[in-house]
Formats: sequence, structure tokens, C-alpha cells
Amino acid sequence: MNKIEVCLTLENYPNFKNPNAAVIVVDVLRATSSICAAFVNGVNQIVPVPDFADALAYKEKGFLVASEKDGVKRPEADFGNSPQNFSAENISGRNLVYCTTNGTRAIHAATESKGVAIGSFLNLTAVTEWAMDKNCDILVLCSGWKGKFNIEDTLFAGAVCELALKNPNYSTICDSALAAIDLWNIAKNNLPEYIKKVAQYTRLNKNGNGDSIPYCIEIDTTKEVPIFDGKTIRAATKNNI
Amino acid sequence: MNKIEVCLTLENYPNFKNPNAAVIVVDVLRATSSICAAFVNGVNQIVPVPDFADALAYKEKGFLVASEKDGVKRPEADFGNSPQNFSAENISGRNLVYCTTNGTRAIHAATESKGVAIGSFLNLTAVTEWAMDKNCDILVLCSGWKGKFNIEDTLFAGAVCELALKNPNYSTICDSALAAIDLWNIAKNNLPEYIKKVAQYTRLNKNGNGDSIPYCIEIDTTKEVPIFDGKTIRAATKNNI
Repeated sequence: MNKIEVCLTLENYPNFKNPNAAVIVVDVLRATSSICAAFVNGVNQIVPVPDFADALAYKEKGFLVASEKDGVKRPEADFGNSPQNFSAENISGRNLVYCTTNGTRAIHAATESKGVAIGSFLNLTAVTEWAMDKNCDILVLCSGWKGKFNIEDTLFAGAVCELALKNPNYSTICDSALAAIDLWNIAKNNLPEYIKKVAQYTRLNKNGNGDSIPYCIEIDTTKEVPIFDGKTIRAATKNNI
Repeated sequence: MNKIEVCLTLENYPNFKNPNAAVIVVDVLRATSSICAAFVNGVNQIVPVPDFADALAYKEKGFLVASEKDGVKRPEADFGNSPQNFSAENISGRNLVYCTTNGTRAIHAATESKGVAIGSFLNLTAVTEWAMDKNCDILVLCSGWKGKFNIEDTLFAGAVCELALKNPNYSTICDSALAAIDLWNIAKNNLPEYIKKVAQYTRLNKNGNGDSIPYCIEIDTTKEVPIFDGKTIRAATKNNI
């Protein structure tokens, strides 16, 4: 029997680290939703970096740069962090470097594992199936926000658990998984309404980025599963899953 | 307007530290419930220590020692960590040193604040009123379990938030507070049933300590509010609240 667990913030990750787990990293608002959007629109690869200095080094190699500071696109960047930036016209076939605080730190943390996939509501079923196809433990790693729990990542984690626990090969005794499922059951029938209470909803609206929220909470709009190999993110293919 | 926040595990505390908050530390199963029980039964003071070596040093000074390892009373200790140990006969007027992993670490963490109280379902209303009487921010610090989220502390935090938010001087935009309230609303009408799903319920029953659980989830059985002054815990009096 494989187990599924949920790590609610990166700060708890040392206590959840599991080399036998397929890890799904999530930052619903907005890093991992934006990464999924970019793969829907044909980006070639995305290098996630937590430091902007690293992003600039990639810019010199011809990478497009997506980065914001306090919700505003940095002057040296090509885009901010909204998924709407990643249209086919902007990024098809291109290489992108993506710089955020919470999501990219989480993506880099999880490499001692059976694989790291980028999860969001956009690819909820596909990314859960990717993990179940590996027939090992599953860990959903929530990025949180500046070292704090956030609701939106937890709801996604609850949705993954709900799907995985329909598979008789998975079970859980993880309190954070059980709590995430309970929260997801409250929210799932009216996610656009429930999401209004989360702190990041208020933050994004305050800095003019609220229009990206409906896109980030649409469920199963793609079957793309971006995979992180320890350095870069590429679309799942037969060679890298 | 004062804010109320919830820190779900000690690992997140650096991001919640607030010198303007009254801190309520909780470890429902069982450190803070046992500490409340001891004050109900007239203990003089309790020194919380995370290391057993420190507990032994207090033993030499005539303190009673409560400590377990893996759910079993240590041979050098007078009691295990169950609240039933702290009967008036055993502890009235005595000094106690209490050694646990999760709860005592959390109690010691929160001293840069407007005050630290020991919370549990036993003193839910009293400890919330203690915090509100200070007319400052409130932080509920959940001990968690070995660096992981636990449901039972989160339920208590939700119950504190529910009470405090009835007071027009308090508001919250804290995701963990909002999630804790939602979970508490699911659980509160049948806490003895809901608590069966938490990992610590299974752990305590496995090592023969399950009989302490009903005691730990009884609500408002005392008005005692144990206060930690940075070194020791004493009953709240006019001098130390």
C-alpha cells in the first residue's frame, strides 16, 4: 500500500522528505498555474529560480524572463508572473526563466524523490495520474506564502488526495492530508466564491492582478504535466516521466 | 482593531512572531491539557523542559518529574504525561518538571510577546478571555507533532478564533485562522467522533494511553489559565497576568 501525504508549507518539508515519493509541487496563486499555462502554450523549457540575479544570468543566454517584485513586473523582465502573459504568441518554442519567492523555492526543495511534477488546478487529474502511474508514495508539497500556510494550495492538495484515495493502492494517516480533504469538501462546490476569503485573493486584487485568479482555479483545462529534473522544467514525455 | 492569527506548527513560528500578541500555546494531546489538569489539582508550578537531562536536574532539587519516551513513562520519572497522573493527591502544592518533545518546545518559543498562556479545550473560554483582556493581538501557537501539522491543535485554534471573532475588537485575514475555523465548524458538534481520525488518536491508543483522550477534549472544565513567564508556569493571579 502506498501512502499519500500533504506538506502544508516548505518549512515542514524536512519532516516529510521521502525518497520513495512522487512529489507534486503547487503554488496555485500563481507560480505553478502560470508554469502549466506556459506549457499549454508551447514553451520549450522553464528554469525556476528563487533569486533574480540568477534570472538575469539566464537572460544573457537568450531566455525570456518572468519576474515580479511586490506584484509589479520588474523593469528588466519580459513578463510579470500572471498566466495570461504566457500566450502562445509570447512563449511558444522559447526558453523561459521564472523567478518567484514561494513556488520556485518549493520546486527546488523536492528533488530527493521519485520525481517532481508541477501541479495546479489546471492539470489536477493529469498530475495526480502521473503520480499514481509511478506506483509509489505521493507527497503534495504546498508552497505556502512567505513561510505561512495558505488555503489555496491546501485546497489543491485536498483535491489530489480525494482523487488518489479512490485508487485502492493509496491510503493516508496524515493529518494534513485529512484536513486538506475536509477543506476541499467545503470549497469544491463553489471554488470561485470560497477563494475570495484567502489572503492572496486580496493581495492580488490590491496590486491589479486579480484577473488571473479565475484562470488559476479552473479545473482540468490541460493534460500537460510539467516535470522538474533538478534544473529545468520540461513537458512530460516518454523519456522524462 | 486587533488581529488574531494561528501558527499551525512551530516551524512556521518565525514568520508569525509578534511582540504585540498574547500567545496561547496548545498541545491538545497531551502536554497543555495535562498542564491545565495539574493546575486544576493545585500544582504549585510546572517547569516545562524539552530535554530529559534538564528534568533530572530539577528532580535533584525536589521537583516531581513527568516524562515519557515513546509513550512509556521513563524509569526515572514519577509520572508519564497523561493528565490523569496529575491528581490532587499526587501534585497538590508540589513543584513539577514536565518534559515533552512538541509542547514544551512551543511554550519556550513564544516568549517575545505580550504574554504566554497554556491553552487546551479544558480552559478554552478562560484562556481566550485572558488573551482578549490584554486588548492586543492574539496568536494561537499549535505545537504540531514532530514538525508536522496536527488536526487536534488546529481544532482548538479554530475554537479560540470563533470566540475571539465574536468580539468586535478582533478580526483576521490569516489563512490558517480561517482554515482552522472551517475545520472546527466541521468537528465541533461531534468532537469525540471527529477526533478518531487524527494520527495522535491512533498513536495514543496503540501505546495504551487512549483513555486520556476523552479528558483532553472536554470543553471548559476549568477557568484556570496557566501562565508561562519564560522559565516556569504558574496559575494566573493578579500579579502575573
